[in-house]
Amino acid sequence: MAAYLDYQSSKPVDPRVIDAMVPYLTTSFGNPSSLHTTGEEARKALEESREAIAGFINADPRDIIFTSGATESNNLALIGFAQRNKDKGKHIVTTETEHISIHNIAKYLTKAGFTVTKLPVDEYGRASVADLAKSLTDETILVSVGYASSEIGTVQPITEMGEVCREKEIAFHSDAVAAEGLLALDVERDNLSLVSLSSNDIYGPRGLGVLYRKKGVKLIPQMIGGGQESGLRSGTENIAGIVGMAEAARIMQKEMTGEVERLKGFRDHLIEGILGAIPRSYLNGHPTERVANNAHFRFDGVEGESLLLTLNAKGVMGSTGSACSSKTLEPSHTLLSLGLSHEQAHGSLELTCGRFTVQEDADRVLEVLPGILKRLRELSPLYDGG
Amino acid sequence: MAAYLDYQSSKPVDPRVIDAMVPYLTTSFGNPSSLHTTGEEARKALEESREAIAGFINADPRDIIFTSGATESNNLALIGFAQRNKDKGKHIVTTETEHISIHNIAKYLTKAGFTVTKLPVDEYGRASVADLAKSLTDETILVSVGYASSEIGTVQPITEMGEVCREKEIAFHSDAVAAEGLLALDVERDNLSLVSLSSNDIYGPRGLGVLYRKKGVKLIPQMIGGGQESGLRSGTENIAGIVGMAEAARIMQKEMTGEVERLKGFRDHLIEGILGAIPRSYLNGHPTERVANNAHFRFDGVEGESLLLTLNAKGVMGSTGSACSSKTLEPSHTLLSLGLSHEQAHGSLELTCGRFTVQEDADRVLEVLPGILKRLRELSPLYDGG
Repeated sequence: MAAYLDYQSSKPVDPRVIDAMVPYLTTSFGNPSSLHTTGEEARKALEESREAIAGFINADPRDIIFTSGATESNNLALIGFAQRNKDKGKHIVTTETEHISIHNIAKYLTKAGFTVTKLPVDEYGRASVADLAKSLTDETILVSVGYASSEIGTVQPITEMGEVCREKEIAFHSDAVAAEGLLALDVERDNLSLVSLSSNDIYGPRGLGVLYRKKGVKLIPQMIGGGQESGLRSGTENIAGIVGMAEAARIMQKEMTGEVERLKGFRDHLIEGILGAIPRSYLNGHPTERVANNAHFRFDGVEGESLLLTLNAKGVMGSTGSACSSKTLEPSHTLLSLGLSHEQAHGSLELTCGRFTVQEDADRVLEVLPGILKRLRELSPLYDGG
Repeated sequence: MAAYLDYQSSKPVDPRVIDAMVPYLTTSFGNPSSLHTTGEEARKALEESREAIAGFINADPRDIIFTSGATESNNLALIGFAQRNKDKGKHIVTTETEHISIHNIAKYLTKAGFTVTKLPVDEYGRASVADLAKSLTDETILVSVGYASSEIGTVQPITEMGEVCREKEIAFHSDAVAAEGLLALDVERDNLSLVSLSSNDIYGPRGLGVLYRKKGVKLIPQMIGGGQESGLRSGTENIAGIVGMAEAARIMQKEMTGEVERLKGFRDHLIEGILGAIPRSYLNGHPTERVANNAHFRFDGVEGESLLLTLNAKGVMGSTGSACSSKTLEPSHTLLSLGLSHEQAHGSLELTCGRFTVQEDADRVLEVLPGILKRLRELSPLYDGG
C-alpha cells in the first residue's frame, strides 16, 4: 500500500459520511422548495445540516450559507462584501501568504479600484497583530486573513487580529479551510464576520462549502437565480452534499481532540526523522504555531517535482506545496514571502497526514526519503555537497 | 408507495451512477493537480468524463467546462459573455418564458447597462423564429433561449433559431436543462455557442453542471481562484460529482430513445385522462411541441397550493410550476407570458414523469384527482360551477 501524505490537496470522504448521504441521493432526493413530502424531507435535512455546521463553529444557523466550495465562499465574501460596502471605503487588508483564490481575488479587486494591503510575514510565515493595527485606515472596510496556511501550516494570530478588528469596527474574514478539523473554530471568540469553509477538508464530499456570514454583514450575491440561501446563493440546494458536510462536521466535532494529538505524533515523527537523517534539510513554516498535520520541508540542491515523482515511484504521495497552483511553474508565493530564493522554494516537499494515516505511512517516508535525496543530489548541478 | 410526479423539480440519482462515484469518494479521491498516482487517477477520470459529456451533446471535449450546476452555468454564460463582449454591443435577446435564473440575470444585466429584448411567446409558450430575426440589431451580441420550458414543457425552435444566429454571426446560448435526456442535443446542428446543462436532470448528483463553450467564444470567469477549467472556473474539481454526471450521460445516451417513448405513454395517459375526467381543465403548454415527460394543467376555480397539499396527502407529489420560484407567492412569469390571468395561473398543476415512474403512479393520479378537484371547488369562492 502506498503512503498517501497529501491530505492538504484532497481527502477521501469518510465512509460514515457516504452512508449519511446515500438516502438523500436515492429516496429523500426532493427539492427543498417543493410542497410535498419529499420536498419537506429535503427542507428538514437542509435546516438540520445548517445547525450542525453552525455548532461546529459556534455560529447562529441562520448565518450559514451553503456554497459549492471554499473558492466560491472566498469570492462571495471578498467580492460580495467589497461591492456592497465600497461607499464606506475601498481599502482591504490581507497577507502575503493567502491561498491562491484570495491572492487572485485581491488582484481582481485591485483592478476594480480597491487598494489591497498585503501584510508581510516573518520567516515562519506569520503576520503580526501590530502590523495589522498599523495598516488600518479610515478607508479600511475588510480584513481577510487565512486561519492557517494550507501550504506551510503556519497558524495566524486570528483571535488577536479579531480583537483589533472589533476595536476598529472593521469586518473580519478568514479562509479557515486549512484549520478545519485541526483547530477549534469559534466565530464569537475570534470576532469573525465572514468565514470560508470547505466540506472536503473535514472528510465531506467535494463540491460543497460554506460561507459563514454574521447577521448584519451585507453582501452582493455572486450567483444570480432562484434566490436560494436567503437570496445570497442561488441554485437548487445540493442536499446530499449538504447532509454529507454536516455529518462530516458532527464526526469531526466528536473526534477532533484525540485525532489532533494522533496527527501531531506523525507530524513530529516526520519532522524529527527527516531533519535528523538528511543533511541541509529545513523545516518551512512555524516550529510551534503550526497545524497538527503539516510537515513542510525544503532541501538544498533538489528540485521539488523530481523529488515528488521519485517519491511516488517509491510509494509515497506528497506535494510540492499548493496543488491549487501546481499547474504553473512559478514557485509558491507563500514560500517566496518567507524570504526564500526561487531556488530554495523549488526544493520543497509538503507532507500532510489525515484520518486514515497510519504509522507505516510515516515510517515509509523515513525509509525511502534519505536515499532518494542522496541520489537526486548526486545528479544535481545545483548541489555543492554537504 | 406514494407517486412521485415531480421529476422536473428534482430527480433521484441512478444507483448505477452512485456505484460509479463511490471509488472517487473513497480511493481515487485525489486532486487532479497533484503529481502522484492518486492525482493522476483523478486527472484521467476528469478527462474521460469530459469526453462522455462532449459525446452526449456532439461537442469537442475541450469545450466542456464543469461548474456547480446549471445556475452557475447560466451566470457564466450570460454575465461572463456580456462583460467580455460589451465593446461589440450591449443588446441581448431572450424570451418571456426563461427559467428564473435567466430571468434574474437579465434583470441584473439591464441594471448593468445592457438592453435585453424578451421575445413574446404564443398561447402555447413558443417564441417565433421570425420575431427573433426581427429583434436582432447591429448591437446584438447574444441570443439566449431555453431549449424547453421546465415548467410547461414547450420546446422552442432551437435549430431554426440557431440558423438565424449563424447567418447574423451572433452568439447563441441555450439553457438545455429541461431538454436533457428528453431531446437529442447537438451543438453543431443547432449552431450553439454556449449550452447550460445540469447533472441532476440526467439522474446524476446535484452540485454539478456543465457549460459548453464553443472554441473562440470569449468569457470573463465568474469564479476567481486557482485557474482550473482552463481558467474559466476556479475551485478544486469535484471529481466524484463529475464522474457521476459523466456516467449519467453515458446511461442516458444508451437508454434515451426507448425511455422517451415510455415517458410519452405516461404523459399522454395523464393528459387524456385528466382532460377527459375533469370539467374546465386545460392543458398548459404546447399540444405537440412538448417534452416527453411533462403534463401541465390548469383548473378553473382552484388554488394550486391547496391542490398540491391535498394531492400530497393522497400520495401524489406534483408541483405548481417552478420549484425554483415557489417561495414567492407571485404567479409564474411563464404562465403569465401565455396570456393567462393571475387567477388562472394560480390554478396550475405540473406533473412530470421520469426513469422510475411506473403505470401505477399515473393511475393513482387519475384515481384521486377528480375527487380532490370536486371537493376543492365546492369549498372555493372562486368557482362558479360547470
